[in-house]
Amino acid sequence: MSIHRHCSFELPVWIDSFLDSWQESLQTNTQRMQLAIALAAENVRRETGGPFAALVVNEGSGELVSVGLNLVTRAGLSMAHAEIVALSLAQSALGHWDLSRPENLQLVTTCEPCAMCFGALPWSGIKSVVCGARKKDAESSGFDEGDKPDHWVRSLQRRGIVVQCSVLRSEAVQVLEQYRQNGGTIYNTDRDFGKN
Amino acid sequence: MSIHRHCSFELPVWIDSFLDSWQESLQTNTQRMQLAIALAAENVRRETGGPFAALVVNEGSGELVSVGLNLVTRAGLSMAHAEIVALSLAQSALGHWDLSRPENLQLVTTCEPCAMCFGALPWSGIKSVVCGARKKDAESSGFDEGDKPDHWVRSLQRRGIVVQCSVLRSEAVQVLEQYRQNGGTIYNTDRDFGKN
Repeated sequence: MSIHRHCSFELPVWIDSFLDSWQESLQTNTQRMQLAIALAAENVRRETGGPFAALVVNEGSGELVSVGLNLVTRAGLSMAHAEIVALSLAQSALGHWDLSRPENLQLVTTCEPCAMCFGALPWSGIKSVVCGARKKDAESSGFDEGDKPDHWVRSLQRRGIVVQCSVLRSEAVQVLEQYRQNGGTIYNTDRDFGKN
Repeated sequence: MSIHRHCSFELPVWIDSFLDSWQESLQTNTQRMQLAIALAAENVRRETGGPFAALVVNEGSGELVSVGLNLVTRAGLSMAHAEIVALSLAQSALGHWDLSRPENLQLVTTCEPCAMCFGALPWSGIKSVVCGARKKDAESSGFDEGDKPDHWVRSLQRRGIVVQCSVLRSEAVQVLEQYRQNGGTIYNTDRDFGKN
């Protein structure tokens, strides 16, 4: 009996030149969100994945640690949401699973986390989360965000994770809408629990 | 600006010979759980990860599609819980992210899913989940299982996922206890929300 032992995913190659051309500062949460939204828009424009992107940055210095894009269809992995990709690539870059050391890191994501990504945040060691679009925005564009506890922000805060929502929300929503208008794949849409 | 683009994880090489030596049928949920628990125990014995294992099987035939072990410390990835590893390896083996086709697949896990793995289940396309130990068993052994919605079983059932809990529960708990007695790493234990 032989089984598959190896799993991997990879960001598209355009990431490097895109980041090289990005000259803006990453000092503020708004500036960080601008980069995340630009990455999500580029992912849609290049048709390399869903309309979601995320960053891991050093909360204090703004240094970029990792980038995540939604790679579900590209990688063939349902867990490859932008947040999981960004957190995992940050852990791969740093060589350990705990992002709480040596310095506080922040996840910046163009949409508030789905049920899976919400659950992944405390395990990652991340200390701060900044979100753009809201759950209902993603659902309006046809995505199912799953069942999170009602008080998910408070739940994270109790675990020492600072949460800020609706940063550049309307700009983040525009990317979701662009994807929908392009006829992008809304995975899970053929299931009976889907929103469309 | 150059960032890490690639992420991977891999099961330890002992998996192949272990599965070769496993002569039992996988016709019933109990038989499937016996294999999952044996894999978790072997992961502890060989010190290749945490005391959790999972399988993806064809629900009807019992054919083994993938195996997952907890690889958090080994892979350096906080998302590498046994369930995420099993689902992702099944998707890698089948070449697509949707395990609902062409046949119904089942996840067998030695412990009920944490908040992250709960959220990951509907996205995976899995149609049935069989669990061994309960959340409070994992917490008694020092693990934090996160904040799931109170009615998580009903939530999955509403999405067409059949859930069976406490299959060989006491045998699954023994592996958790063995790990704790061995002094195995309880990740997140140094955070203020930890259980010990």
